[in-house]
Amino acid sequence: MARFMDVHSGFVGVTEDQLREAHERDLAIQDTEGVSFERAWLDPESGKVFCLSTGPSKESVMRIHEQAGHPTGEVYEVSVDIT
Amino acid sequence: MARFMDVHSGFVGVTEDQLREAHERDLAIQDTEGVSFERAWLDPESGKVFCLSTGPSKESVMRIHEQAGHPTGEVYEVSVDIT
Repeated sequence: MARFMDVHSGFVGVTEDQLREAHERDLAIQDTEGVSFERAWLDPESGKVFCLSTGPSKESVMRIHEQAGHPTGEVYEVSVDIT
Repeated sequence: MARFMDVHSGFVGVTEDQLREAHERDLAIQDTEGVSFERAWLDPESGKVFCLSTGPSKESVMRIHEQAGHPTGEVYEVSVDIT
């Protein structure tokens, strides 16, 4: 499994509840691709969303987001993760 | 305090040790601005780095990164954070 950070744009003015709803649509189907979404961050002013996940491939993350109705092409395999 | 995600580009081919060194330069001076860098992720293929931090303002995060030698203008206040 690899770790991914993906970036969405266009979530300007989106509320926490709306983001949670979108996130839950991912969680509901993520198992079909062996993906696990860990955390999501939103800046409602710029509309940027960052999603951290693990999964077998970038494409599997992209397919889940697409099926959940919020596709993105910006998925990065973050092989280095430091605290 | 607010939470921020910032994005750097240009870290193509950077190793974990090199990222840790850059991250430690932030940690060494972060207190001067009341910033706390929590975690950083790197995709050495695309060169993207994502840094999660808390602090008083975007500008304080930018100043620390600048003084540490890796400035970025892409700093987002992620007021929504869900798991």
